[in-house]
Amino acid sequence: MSMRARNDRSFIAETIAIGSELLLGGRTDSNSLFITDVLGAIGVEVRFKSIVGDNRSDIVRVLKTACNRAGIVILTGGLGPTVDDRTREAIAAVTGARLARRKEALEGMKARLAQWGRIPNKGQLRQALIPSQATVLPNPVGSAPGFALAWRGTHLIALPGVPSEMRTMVEQSVIPHLLSQLQPSRSRGRQPLTRLVFHTWGMSEADVDAKLKGLIKKSLPVALGLLASPTGVLVSLTTEAGRALKEDALTSLAEEVRTRLGEWIYAEGQDTMEEVVGRLLHGQGRTVAVAESCTGGLIAYRLTQVPGSSSYLDRTVVCYSNQAKMELLGVPEHLLREHGAVSREVAAAMAKGMRERTGVSVALSVTGIAGPGGATETKPVGLVYIGLDGGDDAMTKECRFHGDRSVIRQRAAQAALDMLRRWLMNKGNL
Amino acid sequence: MSMRARNDRSFIAETIAIGSELLLGGRTDSNSLFITDVLGAIGVEVRFKSIVGDNRSDIVRVLKTACNRAGIVILTGGLGPTVDDRTREAIAAVTGARLARRKEALEGMKARLAQWGRIPNKGQLRQALIPSQATVLPNPVGSAPGFALAWRGTHLIALPGVPSEMRTMVEQSVIPHLLSQLQPSRSRGRQPLTRLVFHTWGMSEADVDAKLKGLIKKSLPVALGLLASPTGVLVSLTTEAGRALKEDALTSLAEEVRTRLGEWIYAEGQDTMEEVVGRLLHGQGRTVAVAESCTGGLIAYRLTQVPGSSSYLDRTVVCYSNQAKMELLGVPEHLLREHGAVSREVAAAMAKGMRERTGVSVALSVTGIAGPGGATETKPVGLVYIGLDGGDDAMTKECRFHGDRSVIRQRAAQAALDMLRRWLMNKGNL
Repeated sequence: MSMRARNDRSFIAETIAIGSELLLGGRTDSNSLFITDVLGAIGVEVRFKSIVGDNRSDIVRVLKTACNRAGIVILTGGLGPTVDDRTREAIAAVTGARLARRKEALEGMKARLAQWGRIPNKGQLRQALIPSQATVLPNPVGSAPGFALAWRGTHLIALPGVPSEMRTMVEQSVIPHLLSQLQPSRSRGRQPLTRLVFHTWGMSEADVDAKLKGLIKKSLPVALGLLASPTGVLVSLTTEAGRALKEDALTSLAEEVRTRLGEWIYAEGQDTMEEVVGRLLHGQGRTVAVAESCTGGLIAYRLTQVPGSSSYLDRTVVCYSNQAKMELLGVPEHLLREHGAVSREVAAAMAKGMRERTGVSVALSVTGIAGPGGATETKPVGLVYIGLDGGDDAMTKECRFHGDRSVIRQRAAQAALDMLRRWLMNKGNL
Repeated sequence: MSMRARNDRSFIAETIAIGSELLLGGRTDSNSLFITDVLGAIGVEVRFKSIVGDNRSDIVRVLKTACNRAGIVILTGGLGPTVDDRTREAIAAVTGARLARRKEALEGMKARLAQWGRIPNKGQLRQALIPSQATVLPNPVGSAPGFALAWRGTHLIALPGVPSEMRTMVEQSVIPHLLSQLQPSRSRGRQPLTRLVFHTWGMSEADVDAKLKGLIKKSLPVALGLLASPTGVLVSLTTEAGRALKEDALTSLAEEVRTRLGEWIYAEGQDTMEEVVGRLLHGQGRTVAVAESCTGGLIAYRLTQVPGSSSYLDRTVVCYSNQAKMELLGVPEHLLREHGAVSREVAAAMAKGMRERTGVSVALSVTGIAGPGGATETKPVGLVYIGLDGGDDAMTKECRFHGDRSVIRQRAAQAALDMLRRWLMNKGNL
């Protein structure tokens, strides 16, 4: 029964991203990630994703295949004003629907363009061509309307490829449309596909795996996922489509993950390390300053991605040269001479100098060898020292990272921010 | 005839990326971008891309469809040691091949693991299961071997999903294998799919389009592509598959693009703005320092992404507070009071102070409002001032960017680096 429920075609979806730039242009399709999340919340599972260029017969092929295996097919892209925009024609060819200029599509577009002081040009008028019998989906953000069409038991939905337009239309039109179309008898009791995410830093994938051993009983319709990246191991709990799960079962699993992984979890869900650190600083009324060397501004960039970060971030400096380390941070010349710029002693002096010169609550420092050059016999590429100075207490950490220049820099920035996070959490607990 | 050549199935490829994290995990498939480029160079066109989870029957469906429309099918992922790795079984199910533990696969894996001081565990032994009649493709980087199998006129190639392993195997094994398999009579005279890319900054997509109007005669088998992003408009010239093009025709088109777009082109091909700026600085023996406010370290991070940047980048500072602007850059308090931190006068003073205090050849500064907060009646979100001070000459620029916080910061960093690039180019021409 569970397999039957999982394979009920009505609740299987496919995304089709259309555009030659997704084949050749070095761009990946990220629209489908958003669509997968939002459909999951109403119990619909995206099982297939396709990508095809601006070629009518190729789109037709892909669309036919999708209609055979999915009850919901969402196409993004190819609705623009140029001759390269083939989605309308391909849908008409597959379904046999005629394209006609629809009044509601035209009026929405005119109203939208009028806001920008324009009238539709010839190309934009093409955008009002919608298959007969389709429902027009208004585009409150851009000029191209979308549409929804039921064909042989499949719900076809065509949306623009511009992410901001696609997102708005999915939330405002597509979800309400699907909820009204999916048969209530089937969707009643249908569970949303829930996915809980835990971001960890500092443990290997194998160690996380070991800590979570035996977490999920075989009978439970929940999948555990682990995914390693330069910024840590992501742990996910995903409910299976079409299988019932007691309301509190997922909650207890999540609690068990938190217990087993403890402070190794730095964030959950959509949260980022810099948001977590920012909230701790803001909540404790503390300020921070950062002295970077090998991370070259990455810590500063990440901290300032958070709106309002100016209230707790005083300043940051990138000191590549020894001269800059002495001038801006007061690192004593003899430390640089005796231990080298990449050393525990210099990391400590950078953090101390930064805190003393700025008067912030806590200063963070990083010095290391990101490579590919710069290694010595005793100091390999990937050797990084992190310093933290909070006045009463100060600490340093030695790390050895693997990977290319970019990966080493990402890991070093993550390790430094995590050191700050743990320090702030301990302060908050005092 | 050209359409026939384009639709010769032998030269049509499809990529299939396998892994539930590509459906639900917030990850996009970037392996296919690399595969598309490399296959293009031998005249093979990737026309379809599919993504599917770790579900055997779903992989089987996708694989059957791919074999019907493509002569070359490259699968990535699902070859690992766990029960979730289903690619081998799915290929066996579709082709009817039997899976057997192959000696050459096992020996390669053992040798690889021995380098790390390990022996294969039970899961890893599964990785040596290869369909009968398939050619084993060695994995010199990781433990899972790949394989190639001809079935009903389609070349099936299975590779690990780890990007570094996939790349090495494509270059070392897949391309030589395909070149030996594609019939010489067909591939002789077959043109590689060439793609030339020009990166521009400072012009709108419509303006670039207008400048390039009439560039390509209809009879020429070359497509012009434009793609807008926060870091500018990308222009591409792509040759069409299976159609002959005179050797110098693409060269002259590229020359014409350079003439028409001139200094708006900041880089070509894989080059980045920071690499171009870095080469100019290095070549001219000049040094640089940067004072950032709203970009929060992004300019520093980009400049230091380039290996060897320590030879020309002295230091950078992020001065969020007025205090930091006065202390670190010597910005006069009366300028901050009279004009505000986001002003042409303060941008100029930041650059001047930075250059004078560090003795670098040229200093760059940015101050602006990235939003969402911080706007005033006269200073909207997106208002950014850029300053450059080269001693004898100094300049400032006012910009008004649209978009969210992240987009405004990306545009501001790009604009500042472009100002530096143009200044260096003029110096080089003197």
